[in-house]
Amino acid sequence: MSYTDIEYGVQDGIATITLNRPDRMNAYTYAMRREMVDAFDRVDADDAVRAVVVTGAGRAFCAGADLEGGGDTFNLDKRRDMFGAEDEVLEDGTPRDGGGTVALRIARCLKPVIGAFNGAAVGVGVTMTLPMDVRLASEKARFGFVFARRGIVTEAASSWFLPRLVGISQAMEWAATGRVFDAQEALRGGLVSRLYAPDELLPAAYALAGEIAGNTSAVSVAAIRRLMWSGLSAPSPWDAHIADSRLMAVMGAAPDVAEGVSSFLEKRPAEFPMRVSEDLPPEVPDWPVR
Amino acid sequence: MSYTDIEYGVQDGIATITLNRPDRMNAYTYAMRREMVDAFDRVDADDAVRAVVVTGAGRAFCAGADLEGGGDTFNLDKRRDMFGAEDEVLEDGTPRDGGGTVALRIARCLKPVIGAFNGAAVGVGVTMTLPMDVRLASEKARFGFVFARRGIVTEAASSWFLPRLVGISQAMEWAATGRVFDAQEALRGGLVSRLYAPDELLPAAYALAGEIAGNTSAVSVAAIRRLMWSGLSAPSPWDAHIADSRLMAVMGAAPDVAEGVSSFLEKRPAEFPMRVSEDLPPEVPDWPVR
Amino acid sequence: MSYTDIEYGVQDGIATITLNRPDRMNAYTYAMRREMVDAFDRVDADDAVRAVVVTGAGRAFCAGADLEGGGDTFNLDKRRDMFGAEDEVLEDGTPRDGGGTVALRIARCLKPVIGAFNGAAVGVGVTMTLPMDVRLASEKARFGFVFARRGIVTEAASSWFLPRLVGISQAMEWAATGRVFDAQEALRGGLVSRLYAPDELLPAAYALAGEIAGNTSAVSVAAIRRLMWSGLSAPSPWDAHIADSRLMAVMGAAPDVAEGVSSFLEKRPAEFPMRVSEDLPPEVPDWPVR
Repeated sequence: MSYTDIEYGVQDGIATITLNRPDRMNAYTYAMRREMVDAFDRVDADDAVRAVVVTGAGRAFCAGADLEGGGDTFNLDKRRDMFGAEDEVLEDGTPRDGGGTVALRIARCLKPVIGAFNGAAVGVGVTMTLPMDVRLASEKARFGFVFARRGIVTEAASSWFLPRLVGISQAMEWAATGRVFDAQEALRGGLVSRLYAPDELLPAAYALAGEIAGNTSAVSVAAIRRLMWSGLSAPSPWDAHIADSRLMAVMGAAPDVAEGVSSFLEKRPAEFPMRVSEDLPPEVPDWPVR
Repeated sequence: MSYTDIEYGVQDGIATITLNRPDRMNAYTYAMRREMVDAFDRVDADDAVRAVVVTGAGRAFCAGADLEGGGDTFNLDKRRDMFGAEDEVLEDGTPRDGGGTVALRIARCLKPVIGAFNGAAVGVGVTMTLPMDVRLASEKARFGFVFARRGIVTEAASSWFLPRLVGISQAMEWAATGRVFDAQEALRGGLVSRLYAPDELLPAAYALAGEIAGNTSAVSVAAIRRLMWSGLSAPSPWDAHIADSRLMAVMGAAPDVAEGVSSFLEKRPAEFPMRVSEDLPPEVPDWPVR
Repeated sequence: MSYTDIEYGVQDGIATITLNRPDRMNAYTYAMRREMVDAFDRVDADDAVRAVVVTGAGRAFCAGADLEGGGDTFNLDKRRDMFGAEDEVLEDGTPRDGGGTVALRIARCLKPVIGAFNGAAVGVGVTMTLPMDVRLASEKARFGFVFARRGIVTEAASSWFLPRLVGISQAMEWAATGRVFDAQEALRGGLVSRLYAPDELLPAAYALAGEIAGNTSAVSVAAIRRLMWSGLSAPSPWDAHIADSRLMAVMGAAPDVAEGVSSFLEKRPAEFPMRVSEDLPPEVPDWPVR
């Protein structure tokens, strides 16, 4: 698939996905949705990719759904082009929410994902990033869960992710007011982990991605990402314990741990031999996908 | 129902519920319990109410259960008056915990609820407020989950709400010590969102309520409140995605979104036509009430 | 059971468990695992113990699994001594993860548990402490979820506990990088509640334990600990409400509440008569142990 609304590149073990409609503040389209899902499929399939950075071209991160359709923008009957009615439906035929299609694809990704908010992230522009592992932001970034001001609802499964990220009180304050707020409020509220001067944002994102890529077993990180995120859905720690026990049994006898422990004892960098594409144990848990 | 232990009023789209036994530090009674449930029924039924502020008359918010019954205060056999044994029982006949009856009514409210802590909030005086969306406090407020010092247990479903609001470590520290703590500790621990000088508390609460009432679709906010809070009980983000998809399908073609998008594009205030009492879609999720 | 790898003592109502292999930085062994489980059994059985402090001997808290086995350290086939294959298996015969065996025993403890991090806590040295109620640390402490750097996975059910303690973003940043970080980063991230000068750490831990022991009903605290922690696994607040209602019914008529309310009204210290070993109501909920 060739991309029109995003850019995709890989360098030094890190994939960069750039939302790329700068003349429209990278507003979200049906094409962008399909391309994002495809890009994360590429990320998972490519063992050269150890981590992902997602950012926006130009001055915005993503201004939310492109409203060029006006009052009919969210009307599925009139906008089947934009909301995936053709190929993405629930069991009962209801078209799947597009933001959720992207968010849940990210939630299942086998590589860590870092959001680098270079500018405004509004509506689906921020909700689709909630299943990313870490959100870093420019001091100039702005955010808004503006759905209640448009007459729709929070989407992209954000009613599940947002309260678990920032707490239900902060989630409700942002979602019930629909206010647009600055980077400092996002930091205080826990939506982003750290702020940077605009020029320092991408270097910081790549430094964090490089800290993962340069020091860790790709199979360990993939297994840990699934354990942690799908563990948010696990009924109890006993479920985690069962998953841990099965994974420790298979991974404790596998090549990466022998290299990991030996290199540590020998005080040298590790060179992990295992690959996610072929060596991820079937014992790694998954989400209860529906 | 006329009220003896609370006051209820509506102005400028905001309902105010005032705990009103100032000579008893607004200590909680069975009458207060019934009146609180009734007041939230009124809130939900009245389309003129867009948000709720709950505060206390006089110098306290709520001193907890009225202990005038002495050592028998919590003895159901001797205090059937206070704990609703007559009409509020579980399937097996056990009287429902009164604090929980109020808390769970608030959890299901279709309008955002703001707690404005003007003074001490102890025992059920604080636990019943945990399902409110935002808690704001006077710098003079004090809090205490004092149950372990009285020989009973945390109630009002606070074992479910409190760890999700402030984290399990902070919840256990407060509940295991039973200490009374000041507003600064409440702020640091995440129990309240912001502190104000005593004179500035209610204006801040009304400003936040007004930010909701003045800018948003009432149906959107009601749907979002149910999505977010009941989503805390959803097994996984795929449940949220299914709920989102169904809601986007119906609300994306409804009048409020047409007005919300058009007014935004026309840079004018929105006038949302839909009403919660009549237009809330049946696709809005609800708690697993038991 | 006599202990080789930990020390156990009780004074002034507080049990102290000291990880005690200072020449090996208290590295975790199979003996330590068995002794920890046994020590928490003693804690629960002894009514003289009202709270627990866990700390390390010498300069470290716990350096993680003892790697003297080199690359075979985590290979169950070659290290059946260390991972409990003999007596601790899942239903399907898989050996239970040892860190999880300790962590889940702590999760069920009937007395509050305070971790006092005097120095480095790495790998299982930190994950096994996640079900403790409060973690306090020396300013000199260091932490690391280093599993991905060793080629294994986060264990001790930490994929369940850690995101619920510090949020999924902080959990993933620490686990995906495997970095070792200082006490300030642990404090900012919410892993520990407070930092102290090295000499002030244990006094602070004992002061907190004493605040619990000196003011509260042991039965109330045990019931609250189970309500709160197992409540993290409860599907909804209605489950908590049912548990509350049953507990309020039995405890509201029991001797501790009569003493708790009377002593409060008489402004004197309470002397609670009930004992955890004999008087814990069967209505206290438990985890869904598997």
